[in-house]
Amino acid sequence: MEHIYAVIMAGGGGTRLWPVSRRGQPKHLLPLLGEETLFCSTVSRLNGLVSPEQIFVVTTLEQYEALRSQAPEIPSENFLIEPQPRGTAAVIGLAATVLLRRDPQAVMMVLPSDHLIRNADVFRLIMRAAVQVANQNYLVTLGIPPSFPSTGYGYIQRDALLSESADYPAYRVLRFVEKPDEARARQMLATGGYYWNSGMFIWRADRILSEINRLMPDLARALASIGAAWDTPERDAVLRSEWPRLEPQTIDYGVMEHAQEVAVLPASGLEWNDVGSWDSFFDVVLPDEAGNVVVNSDHLPFDTYNSLIYSVGKKLIVTIGVDDLIVVDAGDALLLCHRDRAQQVRQVIETLKTTHREHYL
Amino acid sequence: MEHIYAVIMAGGGGTRLWPVSRRGQPKHLLPLLGEETLFCSTVSRLNGLVSPEQIFVVTTLEQYEALRSQAPEIPSENFLIEPQPRGTAAVIGLAATVLLRRDPQAVMMVLPSDHLIRNADVFRLIMRAAVQVANQNYLVTLGIPPSFPSTGYGYIQRDALLSESADYPAYRVLRFVEKPDEARARQMLATGGYYWNSGMFIWRADRILSEINRLMPDLARALASIGAAWDTPERDAVLRSEWPRLEPQTIDYGVMEHAQEVAVLPASGLEWNDVGSWDSFFDVVLPDEAGNVVVNSDHLPFDTYNSLIYSVGKKLIVTIGVDDLIVVDAGDALLLCHRDRAQQVRQVIETLKTTHREHYL
Repeated sequence: MEHIYAVIMAGGGGTRLWPVSRRGQPKHLLPLLGEETLFCSTVSRLNGLVSPEQIFVVTTLEQYEALRSQAPEIPSENFLIEPQPRGTAAVIGLAATVLLRRDPQAVMMVLPSDHLIRNADVFRLIMRAAVQVANQNYLVTLGIPPSFPSTGYGYIQRDALLSESADYPAYRVLRFVEKPDEARARQMLATGGYYWNSGMFIWRADRILSEINRLMPDLARALASIGAAWDTPERDAVLRSEWPRLEPQTIDYGVMEHAQEVAVLPASGLEWNDVGSWDSFFDVVLPDEAGNVVVNSDHLPFDTYNSLIYSVGKKLIVTIGVDDLIVVDAGDALLLCHRDRAQQVRQVIETLKTTHREHYL
Repeated sequence: MEHIYAVIMAGGGGTRLWPVSRRGQPKHLLPLLGEETLFCSTVSRLNGLVSPEQIFVVTTLEQYEALRSQAPEIPSENFLIEPQPRGTAAVIGLAATVLLRRDPQAVMMVLPSDHLIRNADVFRLIMRAAVQVANQNYLVTLGIPPSFPSTGYGYIQRDALLSESADYPAYRVLRFVEKPDEARARQMLATGGYYWNSGMFIWRADRILSEINRLMPDLARALASIGAAWDTPERDAVLRSEWPRLEPQTIDYGVMEHAQEVAVLPASGLEWNDVGSWDSFFDVVLPDEAGNVVVNSDHLPFDTYNSLIYSVGKKLIVTIGVDDLIVVDAGDALLLCHRDRAQQVRQVIETLKTTHREHYL
C-alpha cells in the first residue's frame, strides 16, 4: 500500500475508566484485559497493511517515552508531539501537514489508539476498501452497525450507495447525529440506516487540509506556519507559539458535520468496542454463567450476579449477595458503581478536581 | 476491691470481621473504630475497679507479645498461655485454678477482650453490684436488655428477683436459650424477661471450680494436675501434656446451662456491643444523613445509602448508586457484602480453607 499512512491518535486519557486510567497511565497504555496494551494492539493490527515507517503517532510529551518503548519499530521522527491537547481537528491537521510535505499523494488512516478490534483481518480488508474510496476524493468514515440503542455514541445516517460495482459497499453520508437520548437511539435503531461514529477516518492528506482551509481558517493559518517551519530549526519554536492559541475542537464538529463528499463504510465484523466505560466490559469479555465478568482478580463469589470484578493487582475480592455492581480496585482507590451508572464516572473526575483530590486523577 | 480479679479472655480471632481480623491480627488487637484497640479499652475500663496486679489475661503464645506491649502495666506472670484453644470452659477453669492458689477468697470477673462498652462508669457500677451477688455464692451473668430481635445472640430468661432490698436488681436465671430463629427472637422480645447473653460472668473461683468438678469431670481432673504442678518446674510440661487432650467446650454449654444458683444482672446503659459482625457497625457508629457509616476511609458518595465503608488504609472509595452494601477493604483482600448477609462471612472463612487461600486467614 504505497502512499498509505496510519496516524494513531494517542494523546487522550480515557477518564471514564478511572480509577485504572489516570493522567500518568492513560487508557491506551494499559493492559486493560490483562494482555497487551490497546496501543500495542492498534500498532500490530497494521501489520500487513503498512510498514512501521508508514505509521505516525500523535501524542503528548508526557506519553512519548512510554509509547516509544511499546512500539520501538516505529521511527522516532514519526512521533508528533502536541505541546498541549487541542482536540482531534488540530491533531489531524498537524499530521496531514507533515505527511503532505513528505508525500503529496499521502492517504491517511486516522485511528484512535484506545479501541478494541478483535478481528484484525476484517479491519485490514475494510481499510483497503476505504483507501480506494478515499482516493476517489471522499472523506471516509467507518460506521459501526449498532447492536443496541446506545446513548454513548454519535451516529451517522447514510444516504445513497456510492457505486453498485464496488467490492465493498460505501454510502454517501446524509448527516451526523450527536449522542442521542434513549428514545431517539431506539428510533434510529428501528428505522435502520444509521451507524455509530467509530472515530476512524480515511482520506487524502490534501483533501482534509483543503476542508480545514475552508471550515477552520484559524487552524489552517497555524498549520501553514508550522508546515513552513517544519524542516527548519524554528520548528519547535513555531509549534510552541502557534499551538496554545488554537481553539480546542474535534474533527467531527469542526469539519465532518459541514464537509461535502463524505462517505461511510459499514464496518461489520470488526468485533469493535471503544471500551469507553466500565459497562463495556460486559461486551468485550464473555460473562460466566452467573453473568459475572472477572478481570485480573481472584474472585470468590457467593450469590453474585451480573457484576464486573476488576482489579489491578490480582486482589482477592469476596462478594456476598451482590447484583449488577461494577467493582474496580486500583490499589489506592476503589470504585463501586451500579452497572447502569457507569457513565457517571465522568462526574467523579469533576468532583475529584473540585475536592482537592487531584492526585487521584 | 480486695479479692477481686479480672480475667480477660484474649485468645480468639473474631472471624466474622474478616478480612480485617486475621489469625495474626485478631479482632481485639485491632483499632477497629480508628481509636485504641478493643483489648486496650477492656483493660482501661477496669481502672478504678482493680489494680493492674489484679488483672489476668488468658491468651495464646502467638498473641502474647502484642498483648503485653499494649498493657505493659499488667505483670507478665498474670498472662496465662493456652497451649491450644480449648474453649472458654478450659480458659476459665485454668484462671480459677491459678487464682485460687493465690487467694482462696478470689472473685473473678470474666471478661471478653473484644467487646465494645462505651459507658465505663456504668460498667464499674454493675461490676461492683455483681461482685456482691457473687459473694452470696451465685454464678452471676450479665444480661443485655435486647433492643431488637437478634438471631446472633444466646438469650437468658430471668426468674424471680433475688432480693427486694439490693441496690441493684439481680434475678435468678430460669434458663439459657440458644441462638434463636427470627420468629422465636421476636416472641422473646414481645414477652419480656429475656436478656442477651453477654459472655461476661462474675463468680468466686472456688464456686466455679466446684461446678466444673460436678459437670465437667475430665476438665476438673486436668486442672487438678495442672494446679498441683503450677509452682513447680513441671508446670509447662504438665500443661502441654494435659491441654491437648481436653475436649473443646464453652462455659455456657459445659457449665452454665446445667448449674444451680445462677443469677443474671440486667446490664442496662453499658452501651454495649460485641461488634460480632460487620453489620454491627451500623449500631456502634452513628450513620450520616444518608444512613452511611464511614470508618477510616475517604468516601466519595454519589446516591449511596445505608452502606458501611471501611478501609484499613484511608483508601479513596467512590460509590455510585449503591444501597445496603458492606464494603471492607483490607489491602490484599476486599469484602463486598449485602448488609443482610454479614453473618455469611463465617462461610467465607470455611471456603478460604478449602480453596487453598489459607494465607488470607
